[in-house]
Amino acid sequence: MMSPAAAQQGPAITPPAAAAPPDDGQWTMPAKNYASTRYSELSEINEGDVGKLQVAFTFSTGINKGHEAAPLVIGGTMYIVTPYPNILYALDLTKPSAPLKWFYRPNPEPAAQGVACCDVVNRGAAFSNGRIFFNTLDGHTIAVDANTGQAIWNTKVGNINIGETVTMAPLVVKDKVLVGNSGGEMGVRGWIKALDANDGHVVWTAYNTGPDAEVLIGPEFKPFYDMDKGKDLGVSSWPPDAWKIGGGNVWGWIGYDPELDLIYHGTGNPGPWNPDLRPGDNKWTAGIFARNPDTGAAHWYYQWTPHDQHDYDGINEQILLDMNWEGKPRKVLVRPDRNGYVYILDRTTGEVLSAKPFGAVNSSKGVDLKTGRLIDNPEKRPTTGKVVRDICPTAAGVKDWQPSAFSPRTGLLYIPHNNLCMDEEGTEVNYIAGTPYVGMNVRMIPGPGGHRGEFTAWDLANQKPAWKLKENFPVWSGALVTAGDVVFYGTMEGWFKAVSAKTGDLLWQFKTSSGIIGQPITYRGPDGHQYVAVLAGVGGWAGAVVSGDLDPRDATAALGFVNAMKDLKDVTTPGGSLYVFRLP
Amino acid sequence: MMSPAAAQQGPAITPPAAAAPPDDGQWTMPAKNYASTRYSELSEINEGDVGKLQVAFTFSTGINKGHEAAPLVIGGTMYIVTPYPNILYALDLTKPSAPLKWFYRPNPEPAAQGVACCDVVNRGAAFSNGRIFFNTLDGHTIAVDANTGQAIWNTKVGNINIGETVTMAPLVVKDKVLVGNSGGEMGVRGWIKALDANDGHVVWTAYNTGPDAEVLIGPEFKPFYDMDKGKDLGVSSWPPDAWKIGGGNVWGWIGYDPELDLIYHGTGNPGPWNPDLRPGDNKWTAGIFARNPDTGAAHWYYQWTPHDQHDYDGINEQILLDMNWEGKPRKVLVRPDRNGYVYILDRTTGEVLSAKPFGAVNSSKGVDLKTGRLIDNPEKRPTTGKVVRDICPTAAGVKDWQPSAFSPRTGLLYIPHNNLCMDEEGTEVNYIAGTPYVGMNVRMIPGPGGHRGEFTAWDLANQKPAWKLKENFPVWSGALVTAGDVVFYGTMEGWFKAVSAKTGDLLWQFKTSSGIIGQPITYRGPDGHQYVAVLAGVGGWAGAVVSGDLDPRDATAALGFVNAMKDLKDVTTPGGSLYVFRLP
Repeated sequence: MMSPAAAQQGPAITPPAAAAPPDDGQWTMPAKNYASTRYSELSEINEGDVGKLQVAFTFSTGINKGHEAAPLVIGGTMYIVTPYPNILYALDLTKPSAPLKWFYRPNPEPAAQGVACCDVVNRGAAFSNGRIFFNTLDGHTIAVDANTGQAIWNTKVGNINIGETVTMAPLVVKDKVLVGNSGGEMGVRGWIKALDANDGHVVWTAYNTGPDAEVLIGPEFKPFYDMDKGKDLGVSSWPPDAWKIGGGNVWGWIGYDPELDLIYHGTGNPGPWNPDLRPGDNKWTAGIFARNPDTGAAHWYYQWTPHDQHDYDGINEQILLDMNWEGKPRKVLVRPDRNGYVYILDRTTGEVLSAKPFGAVNSSKGVDLKTGRLIDNPEKRPTTGKVVRDICPTAAGVKDWQPSAFSPRTGLLYIPHNNLCMDEEGTEVNYIAGTPYVGMNVRMIPGPGGHRGEFTAWDLANQKPAWKLKENFPVWSGALVTAGDVVFYGTMEGWFKAVSAKTGDLLWQFKTSSGIIGQPITYRGPDGHQYVAVLAGVGGWAGAVVSGDLDPRDATAALGFVNAMKDLKDVTTPGGSLYVFRLP
Repeated sequence: MMSPAAAQQGPAITPPAAAAPPDDGQWTMPAKNYASTRYSELSEINEGDVGKLQVAFTFSTGINKGHEAAPLVIGGTMYIVTPYPNILYALDLTKPSAPLKWFYRPNPEPAAQGVACCDVVNRGAAFSNGRIFFNTLDGHTIAVDANTGQAIWNTKVGNINIGETVTMAPLVVKDKVLVGNSGGEMGVRGWIKALDANDGHVVWTAYNTGPDAEVLIGPEFKPFYDMDKGKDLGVSSWPPDAWKIGGGNVWGWIGYDPELDLIYHGTGNPGPWNPDLRPGDNKWTAGIFARNPDTGAAHWYYQWTPHDQHDYDGINEQILLDMNWEGKPRKVLVRPDRNGYVYILDRTTGEVLSAKPFGAVNSSKGVDLKTGRLIDNPEKRPTTGKVVRDICPTAAGVKDWQPSAFSPRTGLLYIPHNNLCMDEEGTEVNYIAGTPYVGMNVRMIPGPGGHRGEFTAWDLANQKPAWKLKENFPVWSGALVTAGDVVFYGTMEGWFKAVSAKTGDLLWQFKTSSGIIGQPITYRGPDGHQYVAVLAGVGGWAGAVVSGDLDPRDATAALGFVNAMKDLKDVTTPGGSLYVFRLP
């Protein structure tokens, strides 16, 4: 392991105060704060005592699909949203072992299960002003009274008849609930909407393909690189009409800088996967938008992966930090992207300051920092009718949705991720609404070293790994880091691990009842003590071989992973359960 | 609480040595031993240190129905059989946190779910000579190699087309696997079969209704009371042909005395529930048979509840003990029966030595010890077309299937049970194969005191409770007692409790992820230390309101419980998980 000492030299790297206010011991959004640090200032549980952690209580969700959500803790109540059928549970933490306070069952349309590409996951809820907001697989956003569990409003935002689902955790910014759609494997055109938090009406919708007017590209649009308003690139960078079924969905994470008053959201892969069927850069897919939260107006855009050839959705988390760069303080946005690079962008302009691979990458040869453009590797281009072998990373990226954490104490970014490569073969495919629109055969294999997952502590100051841990399966859970210098993550076998934030040394581990793909959190309980919580419940795209949610029609998208993960079912079993830990 | 001192005076009450050999630290049958004591000689976990118990590991079964089974531990492997679809899991205890060793999926016919009266439970597996034996809901008995997980034989014993299911745990006696059927609510004629452990062929079948030749009543039959061979009471105590669809199923527990070479098994309720439709004693239902295990020949029979009027299945556990009775040593069989009495029988003859109520009973007025006959209370007779109110106990009895434990150290029998009363109204019903054949409307209500469950320590020497604990819901789990003088049981809210075997004082409790209706066990792990294990996973008849397995066609049988338990879904959630505990 490498020393993190280098990272601790020089000025501190910190999240902007407005985006990461002092820790109040709650956990009110999956990313912990708008800066998305997933860092807690609590330190009762620390390197010295974490080895004594015990189970405080557990709670079964009754759902066997993949549990990717983060619990929320507001006041004395914990909120959990499950995979389809998207039950919202409230647990009373002020009572012994947190009995069920209430639950809300939205009863989403069962047909949604058939069009969700990769298990029927849900990545969590949001909280604001006494209300819990969450999305259902069948494309509804719902506001529920956080005290009573009564629904306040329910807005239909998606159309499952065209394969449009919603799996992401909404983000509340001021009086708006930000929501995006899923469906890149079904030819669903991506969008992000802002709903009025009070009554749920749609205030604005920004599409990620199509004419500038629909993408909300106007006078404010000033990207750092050579793109411009008025060109309708969301149309002209596509074959005729292809943008209408071109993906670019918003199923991942949204950040927010209150000072700049900008939200940041990625855009998903272009559809279909087969790039031969959509020559052009396929704007504005596989990139990131900065938008005004009140109007949706785009301020800048950067494309991680122009003309994406490998399903490199650009929807991962972005961590907002203030750091010195070449001697000058910069407001940056750090993105460990699916295409395999840790990007550091100027979040005011979209300028790329750095892009370094954090895992095995051969599908590209780096990023040209002058143009910001990813340098394609022509040897790894998939071709219709021809198998191209050993492309790294796979369609699931060096990192998929699983969110990282950042500690200002170590200057390290803690990245749960994959180590997989693949063979690809493009196929012809026709668009039929509500059915898979992929056009690619994929077969995944373990990456270099033969292990399928890694947990990397990335030294932001020095742009290289501080240390790396190997895991047999993709690390599909989120990461959590605390002021106790402990990092938590889960494995698909079901181990919940605590490692030293400084060295990666294993400090404690506990075997939960099912593989972990959830996001760990920590909070101060009503008794004043620190607790750590995580949902176990294997599934998700990587775990669909166990959760059994493989739609045969979706074989193209899912089977690559099924092959690579077939032994997962020999070591874990499905079943959603909350685990809450504390010191004795 | 009452003092157990009385119970500790006088000669010890002990299980017969041949039926309860010295504890080897394994747990090879649900009842621990043929005497069915559910008592372990392990004492590392005891009154003094049980408060420090911690979760060692957990394991999700992936099944949301009611988990009534006991895990088995043989050598370094734990075996779990789940409710339908009856997956058999083997966990390797020699590896950290017991990873999955193998699993066997029998794929029972889904139609079995529709004819199982009261959730799709399974009460556990059996072990002998390197093989695991278990039953599937659709009526198969399967032998699986305990090391490899490969099926050795699979014998179809039941017919789901007539509503015949199998939910009980088999018992292996010498070279025979003893199995009985379920289906008393479907007019299924009860039987017990002995299958050859080597190849699975049926060696003998004994029916519990019908001609003596089919009940296997022959020259050996010498019951203590006025019954006799040659009378074909299994026919003549019924209206014409009613015995053919008359129940008397064997879905509960079997005991075995190796010295007397007798097996003991109860018989279920007569069908239909409405007694007006079947005048007579309805032999040989709601009673107990002693049979020769090699031939099935009946040696004696005793009827707990002649002409049962309230669904008082006679299938509960029988604990085989040697004790002094009125100054003389007797080989007894102790039965806390569904009808509300703790019976002490001479297990050589079937003579009733004692029958005392251990809960609220008004449906009868005691047992005439001269005739052995239950004294009916005519005021609580259900009548066709008339609602009779406040009958205690309910159709689920003062105690249903949930098995007791006995400690020779305290002389106390630890009984998990119900405290419920009911209103009943008989209805007309016609027999249609494979559909409910009940003829009774039932509405259950909490019993005296308003709580729905009790845990009673019964002083066998003095025939009265030593202490009683109240629980809000029926105590539907099994009981375990150890030489550490600790009693374990679970509640339907999900609490796993350890109480003092002497006083009932709560020593420790842990909130599991789902309501507990499983049977706790204890074993010595490969590391030499004592472990305690239990399956959480609410359901069963009492918990069907949560596990959601209510077939609308079965409303008559299930709804009484649904009404009485409707608030259970406000405090727990379904989901099967194994919990294993150890000291730090």
